[in-house]
Amino acid sequence: MVTEVKSLNEECGVFGVWGIPDAARLSYFGLHSLQHRGQEGAGIVASNKGKLKGHRDLGLLTDAFKDDRQFDRLKGEAAIGHVRYNTAGSNGIQNIQPFLFQFHNEELALAHNGNLINATTLREQLEDEGAIFHSNSDTEILMHLIRRSQRETLIERVKESLNKVKGAFAYLILTPNEMIGALDPNGFRPLSIGQISNGAYVLASETCALDVVGAEFIRSVEPGEIVIVNDDGYQIEKYTEDTMMSICSMEYIYFARPDSDIAGVNVHTARKNMGRTLAQEAPTAADIVIGVPNSSISAASGYAEKSGLPYEMGLVKNQYIARTFIQPTQELRELGVRMKLSAVRGVVKGKKVVMVDDSIVRGTTSKHIVQLLRDAGATEVHVRISSPPLRFPSFYGIDIQNRHELIAADHSVEEVREIIGADSLVFLSVAGTVDSIGLNFDAPYGGLCMAYFTGDYPTPLYDYEADYLKSLEKEITVQRHEES
Amino acid sequence: MVTEVKSLNEECGVFGVWGIPDAARLSYFGLHSLQHRGQEGAGIVASNKGKLKGHRDLGLLTDAFKDDRQFDRLKGEAAIGHVRYNTAGSNGIQNIQPFLFQFHNEELALAHNGNLINATTLREQLEDEGAIFHSNSDTEILMHLIRRSQRETLIERVKESLNKVKGAFAYLILTPNEMIGALDPNGFRPLSIGQISNGAYVLASETCALDVVGAEFIRSVEPGEIVIVNDDGYQIEKYTEDTMMSICSMEYIYFARPDSDIAGVNVHTARKNMGRTLAQEAPTAADIVIGVPNSSISAASGYAEKSGLPYEMGLVKNQYIARTFIQPTQELRELGVRMKLSAVRGVVKGKKVVMVDDSIVRGTTSKHIVQLLRDAGATEVHVRISSPPLRFPSFYGIDIQNRHELIAADHSVEEVREIIGADSLVFLSVAGTVDSIGLNFDAPYGGLCMAYFTGDYPTPLYDYEADYLKSLEKEITVQRHEES
Amino acid sequence: MVTEVKSLNEECGVFGVWGIPDAARLSYFGLHSLQHRGQEGAGIVASNKGKLKGHRDLGLLTDAFKDDRQFDRLKGEAAIGHVRYNTAGSNGIQNIQPFLFQFHNEELALAHNGNLINATTLREQLEDEGAIFHSNSDTEILMHLIRRSQRETLIERVKESLNKVKGAFAYLILTPNEMIGALDPNGFRPLSIGQISNGAYVLASETCALDVVGAEFIRSVEPGEIVIVNDDGYQIEKYTEDTMMSICSMEYIYFARPDSDIAGVNVHTARKNMGRTLAQEAPTAADIVIGVPNSSISAASGYAEKSGLPYEMGLVKNQYIARTFIQPTQELRELGVRMKLSAVRGVVKGKKVVMVDDSIVRGTTSKHIVQLLRDAGATEVHVRISSPPLRFPSFYGIDIQNRHELIAADHSVEEVREIIGADSLVFLSVAGTVDSIGLNFDAPYGGLCMAYFTGDYPTPLYDYEADYLKSLEKEITVQRHEES
Amino acid sequence: MVTEVKSLNEECGVFGVWGIPDAARLSYFGLHSLQHRGQEGAGIVASNKGKLKGHRDLGLLTDAFKDDRQFDRLKGEAAIGHVRYNTAGSNGIQNIQPFLFQFHNEELALAHNGNLINATTLREQLEDEGAIFHSNSDTEILMHLIRRSQRETLIERVKESLNKVKGAFAYLILTPNEMIGALDPNGFRPLSIGQISNGAYVLASETCALDVVGAEFIRSVEPGEIVIVNDDGYQIEKYTEDTMMSICSMEYIYFARPDSDIAGVNVHTARKNMGRTLAQEAPTAADIVIGVPNSSISAASGYAEKSGLPYEMGLVKNQYIARTFIQPTQELRELGVRMKLSAVRGVVKGKKVVMVDDSIVRGTTSKHIVQLLRDAGATEVHVRISSPPLRFPSFYGIDIQNRHELIAADHSVEEVREIIGADSLVFLSVAGTVDSIGLNFDAPYGGLCMAYFTGDYPTPLYDYEADYLKSLEKEITVQRHEES
Repeated sequence: MVTEVKSLNEECGVFGVWGIPDAARLSYFGLHSLQHRGQEGAGIVASNKGKLKGHRDLGLLTDAFKDDRQFDRLKGEAAIGHVRYNTAGSNGIQNIQPFLFQFHNEELALAHNGNLINATTLREQLEDEGAIFHSNSDTEILMHLIRRSQRETLIERVKESLNKVKGAFAYLILTPNEMIGALDPNGFRPLSIGQISNGAYVLASETCALDVVGAEFIRSVEPGEIVIVNDDGYQIEKYTEDTMMSICSMEYIYFARPDSDIAGVNVHTARKNMGRTLAQEAPTAADIVIGVPNSSISAASGYAEKSGLPYEMGLVKNQYIARTFIQPTQELRELGVRMKLSAVRGVVKGKKVVMVDDSIVRGTTSKHIVQLLRDAGATEVHVRISSPPLRFPSFYGIDIQNRHELIAADHSVEEVREIIGADSLVFLSVAGTVDSIGLNFDAPYGGLCMAYFTGDYPTPLYDYEADYLKSLEKEITVQRHEES
Repeated sequence: MVTEVKSLNEECGVFGVWGIPDAARLSYFGLHSLQHRGQEGAGIVASNKGKLKGHRDLGLLTDAFKDDRQFDRLKGEAAIGHVRYNTAGSNGIQNIQPFLFQFHNEELALAHNGNLINATTLREQLEDEGAIFHSNSDTEILMHLIRRSQRETLIERVKESLNKVKGAFAYLILTPNEMIGALDPNGFRPLSIGQISNGAYVLASETCALDVVGAEFIRSVEPGEIVIVNDDGYQIEKYTEDTMMSICSMEYIYFARPDSDIAGVNVHTARKNMGRTLAQEAPTAADIVIGVPNSSISAASGYAEKSGLPYEMGLVKNQYIARTFIQPTQELRELGVRMKLSAVRGVVKGKKVVMVDDSIVRGTTSKHIVQLLRDAGATEVHVRISSPPLRFPSFYGIDIQNRHELIAADHSVEEVREIIGADSLVFLSVAGTVDSIGLNFDAPYGGLCMAYFTGDYPTPLYDYEADYLKSLEKEITVQRHEES
Repeated sequence: MVTEVKSLNEECGVFGVWGIPDAARLSYFGLHSLQHRGQEGAGIVASNKGKLKGHRDLGLLTDAFKDDRQFDRLKGEAAIGHVRYNTAGSNGIQNIQPFLFQFHNEELALAHNGNLINATTLREQLEDEGAIFHSNSDTEILMHLIRRSQRETLIERVKESLNKVKGAFAYLILTPNEMIGALDPNGFRPLSIGQISNGAYVLASETCALDVVGAEFIRSVEPGEIVIVNDDGYQIEKYTEDTMMSICSMEYIYFARPDSDIAGVNVHTARKNMGRTLAQEAPTAADIVIGVPNSSISAASGYAEKSGLPYEMGLVKNQYIARTFIQPTQELRELGVRMKLSAVRGVVKGKKVVMVDDSIVRGTTSKHIVQLLRDAGATEVHVRISSPPLRFPSFYGIDIQNRHELIAADHSVEEVREIIGADSLVFLSVAGTVDSIGLNFDAPYGGLCMAYFTGDYPTPLYDYEADYLKSLEKEITVQRHEES
Repeated sequence: MVTEVKSLNEECGVFGVWGIPDAARLSYFGLHSLQHRGQEGAGIVASNKGKLKGHRDLGLLTDAFKDDRQFDRLKGEAAIGHVRYNTAGSNGIQNIQPFLFQFHNEELALAHNGNLINATTLREQLEDEGAIFHSNSDTEILMHLIRRSQRETLIERVKESLNKVKGAFAYLILTPNEMIGALDPNGFRPLSIGQISNGAYVLASETCALDVVGAEFIRSVEPGEIVIVNDDGYQIEKYTEDTMMSICSMEYIYFARPDSDIAGVNVHTARKNMGRTLAQEAPTAADIVIGVPNSSISAASGYAEKSGLPYEMGLVKNQYIARTFIQPTQELRELGVRMKLSAVRGVVKGKKVVMVDDSIVRGTTSKHIVQLLRDAGATEVHVRISSPPLRFPSFYGIDIQNRHELIAADHSVEEVREIIGADSLVFLSVAGTVDSIGLNFDAPYGGLCMAYFTGDYPTPLYDYEADYLKSLEKEITVQRHEES
C-alpha cells in the first residue's frame, strides 16, 4: 500500500454498481477504498435514463472529484468507476478510465484492471484494418474488437472479443441496459460480487470496497467468467472453458488492503502467516521485531508471535507524505528518505533488531532503512523478507517489466545483503509463501501466480516472448553466479 | 496525529536553523516532520546578507511550497518556519506565520506555537495607544511590545516583552543578526535545541525534526528561558525566574510524533506505558486487543503485552484520507466513517475485542468504531482509553475552548459507554497517566499540565476567567449527576 | 472581432510552418494573431526528428500555453496549430485541435477550420464499419477516411478522402515528412501561403498571421487545391476539378481582421466600401456618424466620408471585457450591457446620430446600444447596417444553424426597427454588399457565399437538407408578411 | 488606456457607494469601468449591519472576483472598492486595497488613489513611535494618523490626519456609519460625486463609473474637500483652505477613459482638441492621418479634421493582448511587437502618413510603430505627439519617478526623431496643450499640473526633493544641448 516508498505499483482498481439511486456517488466511496491500487487518475461513468455521462481527471480520486456539482451531471442508478496507476509515457487525461464510447447506435463505458500481453499485435492488426486508437492504453483494444464483432447481441460480441485478448484483465462494461464484469482465464486480478441490502449489485476489485458501501459478499468472479447485471438480477456465464487459476501472489504479499479477502483468504491473515512461516524458516537471535510501515506490519507481527520476540514500533511513517516534493539539493539529499520514515530511537537503541519487510525491489529503500535503524542505535539489523526474491518481470499488470530494476535478478542473496548493509538477510521460500497463503485450487502453486519469483509464467508470453528470452541470457549468468 | 478522525488539534509547530547554507530548504524538511502539528498553513522566512525574505501560503507545507523556485528567493544561512493549525475565523493568509516585519531601522520575523491568555487585554491596550493589528493572531502582540519597549538592545526588548504576555508560547524570532527562541514560564509547549554536524544550530518543536535534518539533540529549552543563536554559537538566558514546569500532557497522549522525545521521555514509550498501566487498572476478559490507528497503536500494544492478550490489526486506516471530500448524501451518510477506518473481518469476527483509543472528545468517532467492529462480527467490544476523561477546556493552545464539545464534561462514564455502545468503558486514571509518563519535575503532576482532566490550571486564566467560571455552573450539575 | 458583444462566432483558425527552428514557438505567435477566430481552445503539434509531439488546452492561446517549458517538449522545425471556437456540447479537451494520431506505421496531426455538411452520414457509415470516434468534432472523420484509403501514398490517400467530405474546410496536416494544406471546392474559408525570409513556408487562415511572423504573402490556396510543403519547397495540386468559388462573405463583413487580405481584397477596405455604399443607398439627415467598436469602425468611417457627415467616437468599448463575469442580479441587470460599451455623452448629446453596425443577429445588442445613445442625449438614432439582413442559417462554419436566432428571419425590417427602438433602420443591399467587396470570380455574387442573406447555398445541403426545408415553412410566412 | 504598449501607468481607481442593496456587487460593476486605472489587484469592502467584510486579490477585477459566492460574504448597503496598479516591489496581496482595519472599538476600510510625497518621513516617525506597518503602500500611513489623533470624532481625526499627509490623494473611507471621500489640496486626482436614482450616493475616480451604474453626476470633489455620506445624505466640508487646483494633465492626455468628464471637460473632446491644435501648430504635407490605437484615436481624428487630411485606420490593435506571454526567443524577438499592433498594408502602402500618438516615454514603442508602417509600405512617416515632451519625473501617482526612463529628458526632439526613425517629429506645445484642454481655474496653467513637461511642481517635493535636484544636473546638460 505504500506506493511512495516502493517502486512496485498495481495497475488499477475497478468498482461498479447497478440498481441504486445516486450510483455515481456510491462509486466514489467504493473507489476511495481502492485508491491504493492507483493514484494517478480516476473516473466514473453513470447511466441515467438511457444516457451515459462520465467525468475523469488526473490525480487522486479526491482531486479528480473536487466539486460536488460534478455528481449533478452523473445522476442515475448505475455507474462504473476506475482508479488508475499510470505507466510511464501514458500520463495524459485521455488515458484515464472509464472510457466512454458514444456511437450512433449504442453507448458503452469500459474500465480495465490488468495488462494484455498480445496488445501490440492486436493493435497493429486493428490499425491495419483502419482502426484509430486515441489512448496508449491497451484497454481500448477490447472496444475495437466488440465493435467489429459480427455477433448478434452485445453479450455475444463481448464474449467473442474476450477470447481474442490475452493476459490479465478484470473488465467492467456499462451500457444503459446492463453492467458486465469479465475476468481473464487465469483470474490474475481479483474481482468480487456483492449485494447491497436493497438488492442492488456491486462488482469490485477488492472486498474492502464491498464493506465500505455496506454490500454483502456473494462470491468471487472466477477465471473465464462473465457476469451480467441488469434489472433482472445477475447472471454468470463462461466465455471460455480453457481456464487455470493463477491469482497474482503479489496481491497477498503487497498490493491488496489487509481487510480484503481474496479467493476466500483474508489478506492480513495471509501476511501474518507469511511472517510466522518466515520465523520458522529463519529464526533469529534478536531483541525485538519491527515491521516497515504500513504494508509489512502484519507479517512482522506474525514473525514476532511465532518467534516469541516482542513486536515493537521501531519505525514511524510520516502521515503527510505528499506526491510532489521540493527536492533536496545534493547536500541535503539524505533528508529525502528521512521525510518518509523515522526510526524510534527510544525503541531500537542498543537493540538487535529483526526488520521485516514484504519485498525488495531495487534495494535502495531497504538500504536506507537499515541505515536509519543503525543511526538510531540498533546494534544489529537482521532483514527478513516475507516473500521470495523478485527475479522475473511481470507482464500481468505490475509495474515491473524490466529485470534490470530487480536487484535479486542479478545478485545473490549474499550480495543483496551486503548492498543493503544488513547483518543477515533471509527471504521466505517459494513453498513457504504458497503454504502460508494456503490456496487449494487444482493448479500449480495451489492457484497462485509465482512467476516473478520462479519464472513459471502460467500463459504463453505472446508479444513479450522476445523480451523475456533476451533477459534470460542474463538470468543464466546470475544462476551460475549464485551456484558458484 | 490523525487530525482527520479526531477533533483535537494542536496549534502549530516551529523550526529554525542558523548557520548552514540553504537554510530555508533545510527548514522545509524540518517542518515536514512537524506537519502533524498544523496543516492549514505554512511559511518560511530566510535571512540573506542582512535582508529577510519570506514565503507563506495556505494548506500543507507541500501546497504552500509547490515550486522549487520559491527557494531561490529564500537563499541564506538562517531561516525560521512555521506550520499552522487555523482556529475558526482566522483562516486568511495574513494569519500564516512566520510574520515578517520590515522597519526602517530593523527587520524581524516571528513565529509562535501556543496561545496567549491575556491577548484580548493586551490588544485593547495597544490599540488604545495607537497600535494597528493586521492579523487575528495573538502572535502579533509580541512584536508590538518589542517595538514599544524602550530598552537598549533587541534582547532586552524581547525579554521585557516576554514578561508581559501570559499563557503558552514557544516563540522563534529571526533577525539578520541572530535567531532567538523563547519558552513560556510553564513550558507548556516543547522546544528543543539541536546541533547539525557542521556546527549549525537548530530549534524545533519536536526532536523528530532534529532527526530528520540530522541534528544532534543538545537539550530542551526550559521554562522562562530565551536562547540566542548567532555566529558565535548559542547562549541561554532566563527572562524570568517565576517558572513552574507544566508540559502539556496531551503532547504525550496524542499530539506529538511517537519518535519524538519530550523532556527526555520518548513519546511512543510513554504511550506504551499508558497502555500497560491501563491493562493493570482495567483488565478485561477478551480474545484480542486492537488499537485505533494511528495514534493509539503504541498504547494498544502496551495493553496487549501487559494483559497477555494477543495484539491484532483489527482496524485498518485508509492511507488516502484527503482533507476535502465529496460529502455523502443523507442516504449514504454512514459511508463517510467507513472511508477512514475499516474493520478486518477476518481478525475480529467472533472475537471479544479490547479496543484501545487515546482519548474521547465528542464520542461520535468512538461510537462509529464500536459499530464498525460489531458489524465485522465482534461479539463484545470493550473500550479502554489510555488517558482520563476530557472535562475542562484548554486555553494553552489545544483547540478545545468549549466544554460543550466534551462528552465527558457533562456525562458520566457509564453514560458515555451507553452512547458509544461499548460493552464496557474504562479510562486511565489521572495518577496512572502521570506515572506512566513518568516525569520527575518538582511541580504538580511531576511537571505535567493535567488541566483538561482535573481543572487544575497551572496559571491564572486572565481573559478566560469569566468564561471558565460560567462553564463551571454546568460542571457542578455534572458532578452531582455522577455522584448520584 | 468583438465576439463578446455579438453572437456570431467563427469556428477556428489554423497556422502551420515548415522549415524553421523553434517552429512551435513561431506558431504560437502566428496563432495569437488568429485568436479572434476562436477563443475556447488552442493547440500546437510540432515535428522533431521524425516524432510528433503536441500540447493543447482549453481557453485562450495564452491560457493553453502558460508555461514556457511547454515549448521544450515541442522542439523541431515544423509545426501546425489551431485556435478553436467550441460549439455547444463539445467543450471537452478531447475536441481541442490539432488532433495527434500515432499509428504503428505513421504519425499524423490534423487541424480543421470549417464545418462538414455530410459528417453525420459519414460518421454513421464509418461506425458501422467498426470505426471508433473519440471527439464530437467532425474533424476526426477525415483521419478515418485517410486511414481506410487503399491508395499507395499519403498524398493519394488524402486526396481520395478529401473527395468524400462535403462542406467547408481548410485542413492542415503535419507528418514528420511534410505539411499539407487543403481547401474545400468552394473556398469557403480563407487559407494563405507565405514565405519566411529564410525560405521556410507558412500556411495560415489569414494574412495577418503572415505579417506577424514576417512572412511574405505568396498566394491564396484556391478551391479544390492541396498544398504540399516539405524540404524540397512547396507544391500545389488539385484533388478535384469540380470547384466554384464561394468565399464566406461574413469574413469580410465581420470575422476577419481588418489588416488581413482575403482573395486579394483588404478587409478594412472592403468594410469601408460597404460603409460608403450604405451612405449612398441610405443617406440620412443627421449630425454625426458613429460606429460600434470595434468591428464597425471601418464601415462607419466609410459612411461618414461618403455622406460628408463628421465621424465621431460616440461609443467606447471597455478594454477589459473578460470572458467570465459575475452576473448582475435582477435589479442590476442593465449594468451588464454598460460594462462593455459606453456612450460618450459629450459627443452624442443633442445630436442626430447615424449609428453604423456590421450586422444584426438577435437584435438585443442593437436595442441596448440605441438605448445607451438615447440615455446619453442623442435626439435621433438612425441605425445603418453594413450588410443585408441575416435570414438563413449557415452550415459552413459560422455558429448559426437555427433560424430562430435570427431576428430578421421572421421579422420585417420595420418590425426590427421597432424592436431595437431606432428612428430608422436600413440594411445594405445584397448587390451593394457584393459590389463593395468587389470580387471578380466567375461565380455567383462574384465568388461570395451570400447564403445567410439570400438562401442561395452554393452546395447541396446533405445532412442539413431536412432541417433547412423545415425552416422554410417559417420563411414563407415571413416573406408574405413583408410583402403585405 | 493601453497600459500594455506604454510604460506609463496610473496608480489606482476608487469607487464607493452608500445606501443601496447589494452595494458590493454594484461596486464590482463600477470598478470594472475603472479597470484601466489599475490591473494588478482589486478589492471590495462592504458594510452590513455594523460589520465590515472584505475580499481582495491579485489580478484583474474579474480574476479577483471569480466566484459569485464571494458576494454572499459581502452583503450590505454600503461598499468601497479599489483597482490597483502595483509599483515595483510591492506586489503582495497585503498591498491590495481597500485595507480593512478591525479595532476593538471601531472598524474602518480605506482605499487610496495617488501618491504621498512625505510618506518616508511620516513612516519613519510613526515607526519610531511604535507603529507597525504591514504593507509597503503609503496608504496605511493615513490610518496610523487617524488612530493616533486625539480629536473627538472620526471626522475630526480624519481632518487632522489629512493635514499631515502631502502629495496626491483621493481617499475613500468606509465605516459602518458613513462613507468618507477626501481629495488633496491640489486636486491632482479626479473624484466625482453621483446620485443613483433611488437616492443612494456614489463616489468614483471617473464619471464613466457613474454612467455604468446609472448614477447622475452631482459635482466633482474639489481640492481640500472632504465628503461625508451617511443615511442623512451627503455633506461637504473643507479640511484646509490652503488649496490650488492642479489636475494631472496626463488624465486628459492618456489615462482617463474618453467617455469620462474631468472638471467638466470631456476627455475625448479634450483629446480631439489637442489633435486639432497640433494640426495647426504642425501642419504636414501628407496623404493620410492615423492614430495609435486606442488612446490616440481621438487626437488623430481631431488632427485629421483640422488638417483636412483623411483619417484612416492604418494600425490595428490585437483584441487579445494577454498580460502574460510566452517570450519570443532572441531570433523571434521582433515578433513581440507585432503581436500587439499591426499595420494595415492596404491603407498605408505608398502613402505619406501622419502618425498621431499621445505621448513618447522611452521611444521604443514609437520606433517599432514607425518601422511597422514602413514595412507596410508607408513612404513617409511623420510623427505628431498630442502633448509636450515628457522631461520631468512625476511624484503624484504616475509610474515615472526616474528621468532615465524619459527619452526626452536627455535628448533633443531632433535626437528623438532620429532614434524613432521618423521623417519628422513634432510635439504639441505646452500652451497648446493647456488651451486645448481649456480649464479656467484661477491657477497656473488654468489649473492643470504640467510638471512632467515643465518642471513646475505645484507643491514642495518633500522626500523627493533630493532626488529631483540630483536629476536636474542632467537636465541642464540637455537644455544646453538643445539650445546649441
